[in-house]
Amino acid sequence: MNFLIIGGDAAGMSAASRAKRRQSDMNVTVLEMTEDVSYSACGMPYNIADPKRDIEDLVIRKAEVFREKQGLNLLTGHKAEAIDRSAKTVSGTKSDGTAFTLPYDKLLVATGASPIRPAIPGADLPGVMTLNSLDEGRQIKSALADKAVKKVVLIGMGYIALEMCECLHERGVAVEMVKPRSGLLPWLDREMADAVRAEIESRGVAVHDGTEIERIEAGGTFRVICSGLTLEADLVLIGIGVAPNSGIAEAAGLELGPQNAIAVDRRMRTSDPDIFAAGDCADAFHIVGGHRVFIPLALRANRAGWAVADNVTGTPMELPGVAGTAVFKIFDYQVARTGLSVPEAEKAGFVPVSVTIKAVTRAHVYPGAERIWVHMVGDKKTGKLLGAQMVAKESAAHRINAPAVALQGGMTVAEFAQSDLAYAPPFGPVWDPALTAANQLMKKL
Amino acid sequence: MNFLIIGGDAAGMSAASRAKRRQSDMNVTVLEMTEDVSYSACGMPYNIADPKRDIEDLVIRKAEVFREKQGLNLLTGHKAEAIDRSAKTVSGTKSDGTAFTLPYDKLLVATGASPIRPAIPGADLPGVMTLNSLDEGRQIKSALADKAVKKVVLIGMGYIALEMCECLHERGVAVEMVKPRSGLLPWLDREMADAVRAEIESRGVAVHDGTEIERIEAGGTFRVICSGLTLEADLVLIGIGVAPNSGIAEAAGLELGPQNAIAVDRRMRTSDPDIFAAGDCADAFHIVGGHRVFIPLALRANRAGWAVADNVTGTPMELPGVAGTAVFKIFDYQVARTGLSVPEAEKAGFVPVSVTIKAVTRAHVYPGAERIWVHMVGDKKTGKLLGAQMVAKESAAHRINAPAVALQGGMTVAEFAQSDLAYAPPFGPVWDPALTAANQLMKKL
Repeated sequence: MNFLIIGGDAAGMSAASRAKRRQSDMNVTVLEMTEDVSYSACGMPYNIADPKRDIEDLVIRKAEVFREKQGLNLLTGHKAEAIDRSAKTVSGTKSDGTAFTLPYDKLLVATGASPIRPAIPGADLPGVMTLNSLDEGRQIKSALADKAVKKVVLIGMGYIALEMCECLHERGVAVEMVKPRSGLLPWLDREMADAVRAEIESRGVAVHDGTEIERIEAGGTFRVICSGLTLEADLVLIGIGVAPNSGIAEAAGLELGPQNAIAVDRRMRTSDPDIFAAGDCADAFHIVGGHRVFIPLALRANRAGWAVADNVTGTPMELPGVAGTAVFKIFDYQVARTGLSVPEAEKAGFVPVSVTIKAVTRAHVYPGAERIWVHMVGDKKTGKLLGAQMVAKESAAHRINAPAVALQGGMTVAEFAQSDLAYAPPFGPVWDPALTAANQLMKKL
Repeated sequence: MNFLIIGGDAAGMSAASRAKRRQSDMNVTVLEMTEDVSYSACGMPYNIADPKRDIEDLVIRKAEVFREKQGLNLLTGHKAEAIDRSAKTVSGTKSDGTAFTLPYDKLLVATGASPIRPAIPGADLPGVMTLNSLDEGRQIKSALADKAVKKVVLIGMGYIALEMCECLHERGVAVEMVKPRSGLLPWLDREMADAVRAEIESRGVAVHDGTEIERIEAGGTFRVICSGLTLEADLVLIGIGVAPNSGIAEAAGLELGPQNAIAVDRRMRTSDPDIFAAGDCADAFHIVGGHRVFIPLALRANRAGWAVADNVTGTPMELPGVAGTAVFKIFDYQVARTGLSVPEAEKAGFVPVSVTIKAVTRAHVYPGAERIWVHMVGDKKTGKLLGAQMVAKESAAHRINAPAVALQGGMTVAEFAQSDLAYAPPFGPVWDPALTAANQLMKKL
């Protein structure tokens, strides 16, 4: 059987490796348009932050390993351009300019997502960058090494923009952030978002939210011309979010879901039973609301790649869905979320009620306790736990997983509140902050 | 209504405060034999470790506050000695030697637990101490302040003994540990226990397990005479575990459960419908096996106290059970557990299979990653998750709560393995160590 995969990143390579491991006589071919496969995209900001660290450290496994040790037909420099569903072929262009056409019995579209560039003049100037590919990481790191970059303007304030903000600041680069919408982290509880904002501003980083960007001008340095404000920079970095690379699927007539992600069922099948999609190009069902969502995250990409491998090698595998659990670090703060926010819950048909509590990360008898905020959302109709958010200088990244598992188990707030969580003075108060939030929330349900 | 409570610690004071809050005209009386109520017993080792910190900092709320602000009839220096179930009274002796008898409509027995003293000659010598009451904490701390204590022998190697080991070591005291049974932390996976042992020994603490203790001799310093070994010490501290203070309940004819803990149902009712028991004197149902267990821990004590208050004030409240989730810190290691170990699972009628995996606490692209061991137990018959154990220099204390919530939700290993856990390079690998363990365990189920 020919199992053909478009895209050699997390989902594509996970699927390829697992399929070959499960069925060694399968002909597994991966089409990757760059020369880089299997690198940690999420690690780029941290690598860039450390001048002593080689950017090539981000490569987890080289192409040769996949080819020689795993027996995969890994074709780098192969850009897939069209799927012919009746002929069951994929055609495209190699990096040397020649064309190729390859047949498939089962096809996986794992084309990932691309950073969105805002529709403003100058957004496509050379030197106005995003942080999507390892190649862009190389360029940014090399520009920093040359000491040519002393000031950066970040357009957008999502996870990656905030991670880059910290990493550039650590390298002594002056950073300003700007975005049109007002409010930092609009999905986060206001009090918690304000705390994060204060942390960022305390480092001397200006946060210009609610600031329309008119155009970017080049010439020596860049000038980001905003309404009533001009920001100068040696480098402009855009981090306003990503859009699924679903063009090839759409052109082939496959159904699309939210934000034009490729629509897949719980087995990662698209509307064509011989074509799967996985990773940042595909949608998913939300574990809480059951609705389709586009939440491109690394764990899901890996897990979906495995599920495709299972399904094409004869072991039916369904993924229940995603909770959208995520965490990022911004200076000393850990910001974490799982499940639905109040507005998301309303949109999904729930009647959400929420609490935001302040607690401590260690018992009062143990030194070094930090404040932790916990925001928790439940459904007035069913009592179900719908989501949680946490901000703290320690432990929020791991504490968020307790409510995340509760969402996976479909637990009510009352059931979660009975969880037997660990206690010792160095690690928290007797009543874990998540339990305190659940106890408070129960009074409102 | 007269609600009478024997014992003014976690369970007793939680019940008293909540009952009075819910029903302000209720006559709530607490009998406490010492003068200390509401202090952090778990915080004692850490307070003792810090010479600059006043031991009275451990007091969370003083008796006057309960009396004056909360309107509780809090009777300190009142030792309850007998329950007369037909007359519905409790009698005892005050600290001035006079007798008292008080009536009840509903009674809560919250007498806690006491350290077990081994049946060896000299175990009751003055200066051979346990760490049970705040008064013992005061004595130990004052002995350390006098610089009279340069060497301590710890008998037993449970949580409290290990926490004291670290805290004494931090104060520059030489520590040796000794116990008759062989094997440090026998409930812990062997490889993980060996890592903990190596950590302790690396600090110069001798660990004499499998060493029979024959007698303790006093005179100048103490001599702990073991088979083939004599340990000298300025102070001998016993930490071999606790036994429930269930004598008063047993004498009144109430049913007892495992290890002579007072048997209670899910509403904390004893075999007498007007008498409740909560905290370290009472048993609980195990959330995984449904069997009765004696696992005296602080969160349960507080939660059970609340549940009693709800039940006596007219809101029926059932507690589903405990997972035995616990964590302690020993030098740089965090040691955490939840649910059943393999031997416990066998005893509870399961067919346990287990894995132990080694992973990292941060992504390889992020500096400072530490090794983490995860041991996970599942049931071959049903696929259910039965328990987990974790050891690491960071994050184990909070990571254990993810499987703890899964146990609360009765999830299978396969369901838990699908949990959407948080990922960012500073906080873990893409596949959280708990998920990697679950994925490995599924292959064996």
